[in-house]
Amino acid sequence: MSGGARAWQILPRLLPLLGQLRAAGRSAWADDLIAGIIMAVLLVPQSMAYAVLAGLPPEMGLYASITPPLAYALFGTSRVLGVGPVAVLALMVASALNDYSAGDRQLWLSGAVILAAEGGLFLSLLGAFRLGVLVNFISHPVLSGFTSGAAMLIITSQINHLLGIDLARGDVFETLQALISHFGELHVPTLTFGLVALIVLLAGRSPLRRLLQRVGMAARSAMLIVRTIPLVVVILATLAAALLNVESTYGLAVVGTVPARLPVPSLGFLSAPGWHALLPSAVLIALVGYVESVSLAKVLAARRRQKVDVNRELIALGLSNLAAAAAGTMPVAGGFSRSVVNFDVGARTQLAGIITAGLIGVVALFFTGWFYYLPDAVLAAIIVVAVAQLIDVAGARRVWAYDRADGAALAVTCVAVLGLGIELGLLMGIVLSLALYLWRTGHPHIVVVGRLPGTEHFRNVNRYVAQTNPRVLAVRIDESIYFANAAQVEDFITRHLAAAPDTQELLLVMAAVNYIDASGLEMLEHLEEGLAYAGIVLYLAEVKGPVQDRLRHTRLGQRVAERTYLTTGQAFDAFANAGRSKRLNGVDP
Amino acid sequence: MSGGARAWQILPRLLPLLGQLRAAGRSAWADDLIAGIIMAVLLVPQSMAYAVLAGLPPEMGLYASITPPLAYALFGTSRVLGVGPVAVLALMVASALNDYSAGDRQLWLSGAVILAAEGGLFLSLLGAFRLGVLVNFISHPVLSGFTSGAAMLIITSQINHLLGIDLARGDVFETLQALISHFGELHVPTLTFGLVALIVLLAGRSPLRRLLQRVGMAARSAMLIVRTIPLVVVILATLAAALLNVESTYGLAVVGTVPARLPVPSLGFLSAPGWHALLPSAVLIALVGYVESVSLAKVLAARRRQKVDVNRELIALGLSNLAAAAAGTMPVAGGFSRSVVNFDVGARTQLAGIITAGLIGVVALFFTGWFYYLPDAVLAAIIVVAVAQLIDVAGARRVWAYDRADGAALAVTCVAVLGLGIELGLLMGIVLSLALYLWRTGHPHIVVVGRLPGTEHFRNVNRYVAQTNPRVLAVRIDESIYFANAAQVEDFITRHLAAAPDTQELLLVMAAVNYIDASGLEMLEHLEEGLAYAGIVLYLAEVKGPVQDRLRHTRLGQRVAERTYLTTGQAFDAFANAGRSKRLNGVDP
Repeated sequence: MSGGARAWQILPRLLPLLGQLRAAGRSAWADDLIAGIIMAVLLVPQSMAYAVLAGLPPEMGLYASITPPLAYALFGTSRVLGVGPVAVLALMVASALNDYSAGDRQLWLSGAVILAAEGGLFLSLLGAFRLGVLVNFISHPVLSGFTSGAAMLIITSQINHLLGIDLARGDVFETLQALISHFGELHVPTLTFGLVALIVLLAGRSPLRRLLQRVGMAARSAMLIVRTIPLVVVILATLAAALLNVESTYGLAVVGTVPARLPVPSLGFLSAPGWHALLPSAVLIALVGYVESVSLAKVLAARRRQKVDVNRELIALGLSNLAAAAAGTMPVAGGFSRSVVNFDVGARTQLAGIITAGLIGVVALFFTGWFYYLPDAVLAAIIVVAVAQLIDVAGARRVWAYDRADGAALAVTCVAVLGLGIELGLLMGIVLSLALYLWRTGHPHIVVVGRLPGTEHFRNVNRYVAQTNPRVLAVRIDESIYFANAAQVEDFITRHLAAAPDTQELLLVMAAVNYIDASGLEMLEHLEEGLAYAGIVLYLAEVKGPVQDRLRHTRLGQRVAERTYLTTGQAFDAFANAGRSKRLNGVDP
Repeated sequence: MSGGARAWQILPRLLPLLGQLRAAGRSAWADDLIAGIIMAVLLVPQSMAYAVLAGLPPEMGLYASITPPLAYALFGTSRVLGVGPVAVLALMVASALNDYSAGDRQLWLSGAVILAAEGGLFLSLLGAFRLGVLVNFISHPVLSGFTSGAAMLIITSQINHLLGIDLARGDVFETLQALISHFGELHVPTLTFGLVALIVLLAGRSPLRRLLQRVGMAARSAMLIVRTIPLVVVILATLAAALLNVESTYGLAVVGTVPARLPVPSLGFLSAPGWHALLPSAVLIALVGYVESVSLAKVLAARRRQKVDVNRELIALGLSNLAAAAAGTMPVAGGFSRSVVNFDVGARTQLAGIITAGLIGVVALFFTGWFYYLPDAVLAAIIVVAVAQLIDVAGARRVWAYDRADGAALAVTCVAVLGLGIELGLLMGIVLSLALYLWRTGHPHIVVVGRLPGTEHFRNVNRYVAQTNPRVLAVRIDESIYFANAAQVEDFITRHLAAAPDTQELLLVMAAVNYIDASGLEMLEHLEEGLAYAGIVLYLAEVKGPVQDRLRHTRLGQRVAERTYLTTGQAFDAFANAGRSKRLNGVDP
């Protein structure tokens, strides 16, 4: 009995889905059903397109939309995150496998599975050891620059499919050059299918929704109809291609035979070679997938006042990738468009994801033959329209306006992705953002402060008319003191002391110093000793609790213990009194 | 006329020595003369020993004590820094050249010059572009761990010279193992010379000085006598070796022929090969040399209320190394023992360094023949006694007590230097210290605050009995909000909001937030939007000037402009009034 009761308490913690279902109540089922169907309609063409983008057969994309979302539905803490193949990861997979496989098709296929398995293991381990914080070192601007650059790479890589020109893989500049020199090989039937699909897909987004709403349709219905446009395009294009017999008549590239079967769970990938060679790529792919997923999950959760558990998300996404590997397919992550659709159409729990997975399973099992005549150019058009949204020019401009350093990191990452490749570009962005951060904290904001007349406020003497005391140099340090800035802090102080030779008291205002590391402590100790030699006394004010706790047991802390004031005002008052008593008791008249 | 006057104004800026001489006045000459002589007495044996440690002929050490100190004397801003060969750099040189030369003696000799030239260029460029701040990324604990590890490596490398056992170079564990297995080859005459020298050198430090002072000698005279002990040991040992004819009779290893000449400036190193291969080592050696020099110069300058200019120090040290390369010798830096001695015996300007260089030049020109019989074991004893001071156990313990992360960085660096080698160990320490710093700022100190009853003070509710308002969650963030901690900050807030479902107002106290980067801004914008969805209003208090300036033009800044309070107290008052007016105007009775 009590064992059963305990299981009921523990299970929802292990499987958040149970908690979601209980919290959402019975009424949620209908919402989830509709969301699940809409998602399946959106995902069937998209999944196949992304598998092709990764250089894999289209059914791999379907499989990646079956087992991983099931795993995520059980273990994930976001109620609306849609997990499956995503464009940027597909590009990263293709880039990693291009070097690794060296043209061997078998290595390419098994390599994709290894990437999913290793990435899944890596994320699960990070989550199990609660190291989720590690992934925060990919900053938003770097991620944004990376995503924009990757989207541009993807679009460039699809131009040849849209034009029907056969090109070797290369970087973005090589591809553009090759396109220009091969432009005479333009294949008109392919271009026709590609262009029409592109135009219908673009028109089928906001323009169609606005039109439907203007003719009086409810916002939600208009949205639901808009979501079916990609599937409608796929069906019409496939029908047209089949009826016009374009494959044999005009040599139009089509998807061809897609085997009709369900993914069979297998541990065969465990014995595949290449685990070592692919590990760095797998880690990068997993990190990017995780960071994209979790930032998406957080944005969506916040809108409904729900919470996402970072470490459990790591485990859930890790298990989703392991589920992808078991199904013999590519790495997965939370996709932007599918998650937002899921949210917009009102999914309440991950039950929607389970319904989607089931429907896609049905498609994979019974309807793959229908896609034989689907032109490659139409898949390319779907990819281009989907990833074009990822190029965030407005966001880049906003970042640049707000912070030049972040803007530079974004721009460099984007350019590096285009010029150096997707992995090297991302690494460069990460290193640059760390270097810029260290540079920034290495040049802290330090000011000389004085008292605003008649108040208890002390402000920068360069910004305000503030009272100072020629005997006292009061310095406020607006940064934790640590190895990268200890020398700058010391330099500022000695420079200002040299400029104010009458100084007898140096007051450091520590309100914004959140900690002092060993290098900072050493600097302060040497400073204090040097000052003592020169007859200047060091005082501290507004030292924070945690900093005070640590200083207490140091030589410096003991030396300045009686010269540490709670507030800057108390320190100034003490100096003024000392000056007065000196004048009163001194030999000078 | 005016041209001459201008030259008089500009020259002291270009050549700090002129300014030093003018500031010190005529009386300084006598002090500098004594300091110069004492330094020469100390440096002759030490310089030869360090050249041998670097695998170079002993005269190279003498040359490195002639031209580089002259260059530093002209351009350096520290009045007492003694520049020349130092033990840790000698070890780094040997380690770099061991891999590079692959047994070729000529490559070894030219490689040392390339290291000096490249390092000198690198430092000069850093200084010219005012990039001195870059070198701050070697933290004090890492430098301390590195120095201790290097000192242990050096001592291990000298044991065979002290015992007279011939061993191949290897890492510290291989050397110790080889020593044990070759212990039977112990050479008793060598050991005798080595041990006696070691004992006299050790006794000739503090014990001798204490003894001399106890018998009534003045502190300064006692110190001067103590400083001559190494030279006395060298002279006596050489005499004994020559008179006993130990070289031919017992096969004792001695220094042998040291050519009697002065270094001839040459630019021959410019055409030498290996610039590319040695660049990484040269940069590391130059960085370590610079960081050690400048921290030393700062400590000594502070004691006399003088100032060291970081960027000019880079140039001066760069030129010193170029001067070393021109003289065909090894990289140099400010040495600990020579600088402290210089300071202690009262050098007032770099004139002391010029006198030392001149005296060593005289030795190099006329007296090298006298060192023929100097036993290698005595040089080894000098090295061991000099570097043993660099192992700073007390400092390591203090760092560990003060800060576990810094202590770990120190220990890992030391162990890595011993286990992985001197360069890899240093790099590992630097990367680890950066990672630990990011980890620390990635886990910022965040607390919920309340009002201390009857005051304007707001403190951590977990540390103090503080008044809170069930409608208000007030959170103080003690760190700048940036990409590595934005997720943690958000997590803290959403966790506490979930635990306090009655919250209607969230107040962020920003007194310690020195800046918000684009990732932090994005997090706050998403947070604010999510809160607005959920009916919670975001307020800010105590936003710093620079942060406020930036926020003003952002969407978030505009949204919260009217909800930003100067002080936490004002925000609390506003909440209390709003609550009261709500109660007064509300429908509830």
